[in-house]
Amino acid sequence: MSGLARFSFNQATAKHWPLAEVVAGCVDAGVPGVGLWREPVQEYGLARAAKLVRDAGLSVTSLCRGGFFTTDGWRDENRRAIEEAATLGTSVLVLVSGGLPAGSRDLDGARRMVADAVADLAPEAAAAGVTLAIEPLHPMFCSDRCVVATLGQALDIAERFDPGTVGVVVDTYHLWWDDAVYHQIDRAGSRIAAFQVADWITPLPEGVLLGRGLPGDGCVDLRRFRQAVDAAGYHGPIEVEVFNAEVWARPGPEILAAAIAAHRDHVL
Amino acid sequence: MSGLARFSFNQATAKHWPLAEVVAGCVDAGVPGVGLWREPVQEYGLARAAKLVRDAGLSVTSLCRGGFFTTDGWRDENRRAIEEAATLGTSVLVLVSGGLPAGSRDLDGARRMVADAVADLAPEAAAAGVTLAIEPLHPMFCSDRCVVATLGQALDIAERFDPGTVGVVVDTYHLWWDDAVYHQIDRAGSRIAAFQVADWITPLPEGVLLGRGLPGDGCVDLRRFRQAVDAAGYHGPIEVEVFNAEVWARPGPEILAAAIAAHRDHVL
Repeated sequence: MSGLARFSFNQATAKHWPLAEVVAGCVDAGVPGVGLWREPVQEYGLARAAKLVRDAGLSVTSLCRGGFFTTDGWRDENRRAIEEAATLGTSVLVLVSGGLPAGSRDLDGARRMVADAVADLAPEAAAAGVTLAIEPLHPMFCSDRCVVATLGQALDIAERFDPGTVGVVVDTYHLWWDDAVYHQIDRAGSRIAAFQVADWITPLPEGVLLGRGLPGDGCVDLRRFRQAVDAAGYHGPIEVEVFNAEVWARPGPEILAAAIAAHRDHVL
Repeated sequence: MSGLARFSFNQATAKHWPLAEVVAGCVDAGVPGVGLWREPVQEYGLARAAKLVRDAGLSVTSLCRGGFFTTDGWRDENRRAIEEAATLGTSVLVLVSGGLPAGSRDLDGARRMVADAVADLAPEAAAAGVTLAIEPLHPMFCSDRCVVATLGQALDIAERFDPGTVGVVVDTYHLWWDDAVYHQIDRAGSRIAAFQVADWITPLPEGVLLGRGLPGDGCVDLRRFRQAVDAAGYHGPIEVEVFNAEVWARPGPEILAAAIAAHRDHVL
């Protein structure tokens, strides 16, 4: 099918669709890649999931997610995540860095913890052939999910390392509001390890996590973003990744078809 | 009462408290200033409200709000807002600049509309002795309330004008996540027309407008902000401005007492 060469379906877009059906659905639709999440992969079985996608001829474009460096046990958890990424055959481990430690008001300190954790994990990631992809999250997640709030901040950390070892994620949902974002995409260049698209819609729901829209349903100039990452030298997969309770309530094949159409009409 | 010299009570912190009672309550508590909103002032009557606060010996530290420059009728509406500020005896009109026009994905264009509108209004504001105070809002409001999302952006616009005519608002709730904010506060200097404090708490409620916490209830280092505006040369009022449905449900005098205590314990 035309227009699918770079398309990747992030499985979180159809949260309730079982992994085996996601894979079969992608093969049926001619989709070349999937973005996977650790929890459903662990549920299915890591080795079994790796064989499933390999046998299907699908590329795993990213694994979500490592990170949460400001919580206890982050080192062991992230080592496991690196191994899982390598086992699944993806070179991209998406990092959601974590919010403020409980009770803390020390945002600078939390940001230093993130940079220190990335430095700690970098040798292991390099050995495994996995790129640690730092994802800046929208500032509304700064306190509880990710103290890295802009692409500039993510690059400030990533640039201390080899581009193959530490990169960044460009996610339109998180970055669209930033007046410096196109400059930072240009700066990122070969550091762009993943490109994820979702649209911004309002009103935001309680907790704000599930407020994303399919491409075209909101106000983000997604095509401009795609052209900017292209111009920066990124020619990798374009993952549609939408968390939205109404989207999740639809049958998996319908969600996939909607994501493919949205990608074709609003991103390409 | 000690510690109240710079304290100002923004009336939106007690949304359901009638204006006359807010004024009487502030006088009783020894509070020197109030921040007012156009709607309750209009409801009470503009001239009558001006006389009420003047007779009470209260300073009106700001009027909320002008702005919404990306909607029809913005010019007349903002001219009225400037007049109302002058009538109330405040030199600070807070501007919430407006989101994207309906159906638009042109964020750069919307930002240019804001800068053009401020230029349009500046002569009238100067003539009235009113400072147009551009308030950057948290990026989660970028699409529907305010395309000015950082203090840096607000200053990029304000610096084209005389500091007495166009300034900026430093509101901790909107700016705390920004790794450049202390640098920008220093840059702002005499452009700081108002300083408003509220704390960041999660989870955010549906629509996210009413998610603020009283100072001390959240994760923002409010004292560091106050010290930063002090160091930048701002010695004006500190407005406590909290939109929170649970706070609003309490009796007005209780809310005022809580705001005073929060200001003393977490801001000074």
